[in-house]
Amino acid sequence: MINKQFKLAARPVGMAKRSDFAFEEVPVADPKDGELLVKILYISLDPAMRGWMNAGRSYIPPVEIGEIMRAGTLGEVVASRHPKFQVGDYVSGNQGVQSYAISNGKGLVKVDPKFAPLPKYLNVLGMPGITAYFGLLEVGLPKAGEMVLVSAASGAVGQVVGQIAKIKGCHAVGIAGGAEKCAYSVKEFGYEACIDYKAGPINEGLKQHCAEGVDVYFDNVGGDILDAVLTRIRMKARIVICGAISQYNNTGPAPGPKNYMSLLVNRARMEGMVVFDWAPRYAEAVQQMGQWMAEGKLKSREDIVEGIETFPETLLKLFRGENFGKLILKVA
Amino acid sequence: MINKQFKLAARPVGMAKRSDFAFEEVPVADPKDGELLVKILYISLDPAMRGWMNAGRSYIPPVEIGEIMRAGTLGEVVASRHPKFQVGDYVSGNQGVQSYAISNGKGLVKVDPKFAPLPKYLNVLGMPGITAYFGLLEVGLPKAGEMVLVSAASGAVGQVVGQIAKIKGCHAVGIAGGAEKCAYSVKEFGYEACIDYKAGPINEGLKQHCAEGVDVYFDNVGGDILDAVLTRIRMKARIVICGAISQYNNTGPAPGPKNYMSLLVNRARMEGMVVFDWAPRYAEAVQQMGQWMAEGKLKSREDIVEGIETFPETLLKLFRGENFGKLILKVA
Repeated sequence: MINKQFKLAARPVGMAKRSDFAFEEVPVADPKDGELLVKILYISLDPAMRGWMNAGRSYIPPVEIGEIMRAGTLGEVVASRHPKFQVGDYVSGNQGVQSYAISNGKGLVKVDPKFAPLPKYLNVLGMPGITAYFGLLEVGLPKAGEMVLVSAASGAVGQVVGQIAKIKGCHAVGIAGGAEKCAYSVKEFGYEACIDYKAGPINEGLKQHCAEGVDVYFDNVGGDILDAVLTRIRMKARIVICGAISQYNNTGPAPGPKNYMSLLVNRARMEGMVVFDWAPRYAEAVQQMGQWMAEGKLKSREDIVEGIETFPETLLKLFRGENFGKLILKVA
Repeated sequence: MINKQFKLAARPVGMAKRSDFAFEEVPVADPKDGELLVKILYISLDPAMRGWMNAGRSYIPPVEIGEIMRAGTLGEVVASRHPKFQVGDYVSGNQGVQSYAISNGKGLVKVDPKFAPLPKYLNVLGMPGITAYFGLLEVGLPKAGEMVLVSAASGAVGQVVGQIAKIKGCHAVGIAGGAEKCAYSVKEFGYEACIDYKAGPINEGLKQHCAEGVDVYFDNVGGDILDAVLTRIRMKARIVICGAISQYNNTGPAPGPKNYMSLLVNRARMEGMVVFDWAPRYAEAVQQMGQWMAEGKLKSREDIVEGIETFPETLLKLFRGENFGKLILKVA
């Protein structure tokens, strides 16, 4: 058996390109005592991966040159000398961009393919969904009747944020790129409106759809959109800083939100969040969202691309806004 | 009797200049039934005044052209046909940049010159001190042992923030302009160190004096200093946005804090505050700070300039960083 791997070969400047990675085919090793071998079926492609490729301090250490590119994964146990895992188990973890991985079991979580289709465990029941759950509920602190605005509204995190906002009795308005994504966000995820940022500055859309202002802004994109929203926040608004995908490929320093003094005028708050902090409560989120799924209240969409060999190009779909739902790489 | 008044004559571009105001001398009116006449003794000069001169939405309406320039004041009742005020009472209020004012009593608060010298009621026992009190304790939420960093450390708000931080068992480091202010801040207000931003970029000072990072940053200045501090915050840090004096005289759009994504990396918060929101609790702050003053734990310094006629030029001391302590205009 051959393990196909992508290693980080160079720190990208701007958008990551194929030559920033080394593609290698190596024999699959056998698990030693206490280890198991996972055949990776799905690889999660996330905006955060771009940040992990940069040197320097962040919320987790960078991927080093020569290391297998870090990624969330979902796979099947194909050999095991570990007491807790058996052949045929499905596991989610962070096993990187490769087709097989040896593990000592640390960081692997068994998932049940009968409870939900496997890709859901990288989407609504995985990091993106859990990020949305705690980011909105614990940092955004939405109250029924409030206006929740979500950027990247149809993305992996955004689609869940919008639906939880509705479940909690809030108004939900999205921001997304393109008429198709916007229409889908309204029809499928229940946003009351969705503003197409590719159609021009979003100010008019904000005035129209958030006429009384925004109570909670869940920000996945940063940049000009964050700045525009800052001019439309209500008193005591909460801005959840979950990401800034519009800025991740900047080669120079990115401008900051020049309207940040709106935080003072409106006694508002801007707060960053990283999902890892809620690790002790992941199960609670998965259980609650699984229940909402079963009740038909929580939908989700994946954008699955096949072929691990396409990894560098497929990843770019995220930064070009070309993915439609959670971007997942299907290994074979 | 003659009332000397400064009215707003034009909306300033950049720094306010004398020609942006109209100086008028008009006869003092007699109070009608239910009114009183206040002889204004001290006028508070505050960074916020620059914002009030601009048109457009803010946390309070702008001063209109032709209106008496808004300002906090402290004066003596010299005539009264109001049941609650007697000649000889001292009152603080918002009576504007003038030497006499008629009032119906609304917004006036009697102060006791035996409890504290009159200028203290525009400083530590007035808006600046109360801003510091609630901004630090209710928004900054400092815990004993944490590092509290304060910009404009010797200014009206900053000097109180630093001392309350120490009273609450925190470390306190200041940022101020010039060796003299820095030395005074350490000696008089108890800062453990004070970084001189006029001596160069503050990064080295932050590394030295906040080696383990900043838990609470009380920001009065904005601009490059806020950006530098963002690179040194600790996990779960709180940044209190109280002001941004470095930016108030910008004639174009000011850059935002380009390092704001440090909020995400550090799960930190940036939150704006306006003291008016705590109006129902002002008395609590005055009582507590009065007690600390009596116990010798809370010092304060005023920079008193004499002559209401000097108002336009004296105000500029604030924006040039030339004031040393709370800037107050003594009317005569």
